[in-house]
Amino acid sequence: MAKFMDVHHGMAGITEDQLRMAHQADLDLQGPEGVRFEQAWADPEAGVVYCLSEAPSKEAVQRVHERAGHPADEVHPVPLTI
Amino acid sequence: MAKFMDVHHGMAGITEDQLRMAHQADLDLQGPEGVRFEQAWADPEAGVVYCLSEAPSKEAVQRVHERAGHPADEVHPVPLTI
Repeated sequence: MAKFMDVHHGMAGITEDQLRMAHQADLDLQGPEGVRFEQAWADPEAGVVYCLSEAPSKEAVQRVHERAGHPADEVHPVPLTI
Repeated sequence: MAKFMDVHHGMAGITEDQLRMAHQADLDLQGPEGVRFEQAWADPEAGVVYCLSEAPSKEAVQRVHERAGHPADEVHPVPLTI
């Protein structure tokens, strides 16, 4: 298992409810991929969303996001964490 | 106080020690600006570093990073958090 930070662009205007629903969709779908989404942060003005997860691979993270209907634009392994 | 996610590019090859030292420099300088750096994540291969902070403004976050010698390329307010 490793840590990943993924980034979604083009989310301008996202609301708290929309972020919560998108995150819930990830949680509902993550089990079979062995992914655990931990935190999410959104800048509604710039339209950027960051998601932190623990997962077996970058591809697993992306598959969950795709199935939830919001593929990430970038998925970064972040082996260094403070 | 608000939450901010800032992003540094061009950090390819960053080591755990370098990340820790950079973060420590932020911690040493954050007091007068009222910033509190909380977490940091690095992808040494893509050369991207993400820093999460609580701060009075985006400018305050950037001033600390500048004084520490590593200005951020982006500083995003992230009012929506899960």
